[in-house]
Amino acid sequence: MTAYDRLMAFQRETEALGQIAGRLGWDQETMMPRGAADQRGEEQGAIEGVLHARRSDPRIAEWLEDANPHSDVARANLRLIRRGHLRATRVPADLAQEIARVTSVAQGTWAEARRAENVAQFLPTLTRVVALKRQEAAALAGNGDLYDAMLDDYEPGATAATVGAMFDGLRPRLVALRERVLGAASPAALDGHFPADGQMRLARELARAFGYDWSRGRLDLAVHPFSSGSGHDVRITTRVVEAEPFNCVYSTIHETGHACYEQGIDPAYLLTPLGQGVSMGVHESQSRIYENQLGRSRPFTGWLYGRMTETFGALSAPDADAFHAAVNRVQPGFIRTEADEVHYNLHVMLRFDLERALIGGALEVADLEAAWNARFEKDFGVAVDKPSHGMLQDVHWSVGLFGYFPTYTLGNVYAGCLNRAMRAAVPGVDGALAQGDASPATAWLHTNVQRHGGLYEPREVITRACGFAPSEAPLLDYLETKFAEIYAL
Amino acid sequence: MTAYDRLMAFQRETEALGQIAGRLGWDQETMMPRGAADQRGEEQGAIEGVLHARRSDPRIAEWLEDANPHSDVARANLRLIRRGHLRATRVPADLAQEIARVTSVAQGTWAEARRAENVAQFLPTLTRVVALKRQEAAALAGNGDLYDAMLDDYEPGATAATVGAMFDGLRPRLVALRERVLGAASPAALDGHFPADGQMRLARELARAFGYDWSRGRLDLAVHPFSSGSGHDVRITTRVVEAEPFNCVYSTIHETGHACYEQGIDPAYLLTPLGQGVSMGVHESQSRIYENQLGRSRPFTGWLYGRMTETFGALSAPDADAFHAAVNRVQPGFIRTEADEVHYNLHVMLRFDLERALIGGALEVADLEAAWNARFEKDFGVAVDKPSHGMLQDVHWSVGLFGYFPTYTLGNVYAGCLNRAMRAAVPGVDGALAQGDASPATAWLHTNVQRHGGLYEPREVITRACGFAPSEAPLLDYLETKFAEIYAL
Repeated sequence: MTAYDRLMAFQRETEALGQIAGRLGWDQETMMPRGAADQRGEEQGAIEGVLHARRSDPRIAEWLEDANPHSDVARANLRLIRRGHLRATRVPADLAQEIARVTSVAQGTWAEARRAENVAQFLPTLTRVVALKRQEAAALAGNGDLYDAMLDDYEPGATAATVGAMFDGLRPRLVALRERVLGAASPAALDGHFPADGQMRLARELARAFGYDWSRGRLDLAVHPFSSGSGHDVRITTRVVEAEPFNCVYSTIHETGHACYEQGIDPAYLLTPLGQGVSMGVHESQSRIYENQLGRSRPFTGWLYGRMTETFGALSAPDADAFHAAVNRVQPGFIRTEADEVHYNLHVMLRFDLERALIGGALEVADLEAAWNARFEKDFGVAVDKPSHGMLQDVHWSVGLFGYFPTYTLGNVYAGCLNRAMRAAVPGVDGALAQGDASPATAWLHTNVQRHGGLYEPREVITRACGFAPSEAPLLDYLETKFAEIYAL
Repeated sequence: MTAYDRLMAFQRETEALGQIAGRLGWDQETMMPRGAADQRGEEQGAIEGVLHARRSDPRIAEWLEDANPHSDVARANLRLIRRGHLRATRVPADLAQEIARVTSVAQGTWAEARRAENVAQFLPTLTRVVALKRQEAAALAGNGDLYDAMLDDYEPGATAATVGAMFDGLRPRLVALRERVLGAASPAALDGHFPADGQMRLARELARAFGYDWSRGRLDLAVHPFSSGSGHDVRITTRVVEAEPFNCVYSTIHETGHACYEQGIDPAYLLTPLGQGVSMGVHESQSRIYENQLGRSRPFTGWLYGRMTETFGALSAPDADAFHAAVNRVQPGFIRTEADEVHYNLHVMLRFDLERALIGGALEVADLEAAWNARFEKDFGVAVDKPSHGMLQDVHWSVGLFGYFPTYTLGNVYAGCLNRAMRAAVPGVDGALAQGDASPATAWLHTNVQRHGGLYEPREVITRACGFAPSEAPLLDYLETKFAEIYAL
């Protein structure tokens, strides 16, 4: 066996163990009895310990040294293994354990503080998490920027400067669009009662319509929907609120987008470093284009109007146009995860700027709430009424996920680019969507993005698919056109 | 840290990883999408590889050498760790891997041969499995007996000689009872249709009635019901056949018995070697006493008759006595897992004698079918009509489980002993059972058996609980009395 073969055999077992750890997370959110939480913490710690030991195994450095990559695939494998090995060896084991321990407790402290609407209760913990994550970033960054080292964990190759420049282009046109839309007459929301079993039947049909392979996955309920797993076992979750059917509908389509990315990766990459989505931003581009550019399009909502009428009886929306307007209704709100397409990225950019300031040292944890509330009022025109509507709404910071938020908007930007390229390349996308058939669109995404897995760097896979370098313009054009039609601007 | 503390810290992570491997098996039988089977095989192989490496880690021998046990608990921990370490180091890694590989494929070959009713198709595989398991047993046994080395894996301390002597005492009185029962008039079976949702509601109620802690477990469907996990995450499964409600009822009570054993172990033993049931025989004693001596008793079936009438409407059994007779109806049949209390152990003893002859070299694989069929006709009075009713009915041998079958009957014998001691010690068992309340009986089992986990050797825990050495007599007395009443012998 060559050094490359040895390395890949070792890595294959690590990937398999990583899948097990991921499925343990799935079980925790969907199946685990509540009394098992403490025991599960020990189990998670044990498998993470095994994974960290494997990723930092000194033999990896030797094998990497001796390996002669013979193909693009081999070179990409080596690149990703080297990256994982460097990250695992640069962070001291006791720091990694301390971060795991502190963030595990911090999540509970955050949840308790949010319930109590008490920011002060959370600040000591957040201060500790920020300090630890800055230490970790310093170990990873060498002489580089701390925030960039964090961002690189979720979006390899991205920097705060490049992402920030993109966001600077996004912000003024989004704010202007928001003003115009909110100045126009608002369409009516969908009213009614939508029984859970009907919503779940519809969810299964929607996942199938968007290409989810049921022989390699399953759908369950979770408080916060997510997709989990790679290769031949990719599971999705959704949620059901009987008064708000779009919650279930668009959570399902969103998670189906994530899942189809994983299911669509070339099977030759199974249990190798290439066998997973390449970054959070590219992942989010798939979930978002499924959810928004396809799922919230006029042709598809036209079909959905018919299916929901068949499932639930007559709807409060009198026709498909009114239904489409209800689906895409724009309203300012405090909560990021409930935001419409116009507001969503404003929520993300607020967090991006604040967390960069926190990590860079320009903002103290003690001043975070005031900074959040001032910025929110400036961007959204309303004052935050309570912490759970403000800086306590997201779990991310409590578990140390700094550098994660911007990938949400990066995903939206990428989705805008892919949508433009896909519609130029594929005729009949809208005709099929009007029949509840997303396959012309998803087939193009599969061929041009999903099947590559980790073969190309994140920005490269988008550029290759689109034939142009990603920018914020296509997303803005799409949003301006779409909402001008719906709101008759 | 002392050597003992280091050893226990290392072992704790191994136990946690073992729980993860077990839950992966649960997932495979209950949740896994069918397309994930191959990938799951690799995942299982990876975690088993991690577990084997940890169990054979050379540091364990050093720690064992240096550890000074300071209590009975510490001594029991060291005994169990030493045992696991010896087993892991004595079997060469390449032999262990070959057995894992061959038995994994063999299970599929067996299933295919059973479907095709084709013994010849299975024989080459079985020959290979027997040869490999004999090699493994030779590595484990040193100069000792091969079959004893196999049996010791499931029932530490038991030998073919001691188990065989017990079975020799069991057989003649069982055969005589069988003759008398089959010579009497047979009660009617329960007829009717019993909708699945009603059966599942009843199953949940039954698990609760027998003391299952729902905050630390859950109930799902499986083709072959099982219980899985230890400590605070112990899950059970059942099956539903709409024409045969006793299938679901008694599968559920049986698995509840296994689960209550695991849930009932002293929480101080969590994630230590003592934190699991001590042997297959003791485990089966709990599942069997819950299922039979409690669940199929006249007081409990009287209560069950009322609950089933409330759930499903009027039953074909006109009264509680007729219902009790239907629950305990004795009928010769080909299939072990469907056998009544009188026939069950005859099925097991047939397998025990045949597998001992196979492993000892007195019987060739090529002659196994003829030997099975001759013995079956002698014991059961009917000729085997097809291989799936004969030697192809059980999965055990295909996956190398030689030495496992006798623990089923050992469990029944132990259940007989425990039942005698428990009824002598606890007044009001039957009165409570007649109200659907098993708690006086299960509280005694918890105190005297379940809480000890792996603290005592298997035979010792039964002897301590009963106040007498286990023998087959109490089981036989119980069966003779019970069926004399039902069949008016």
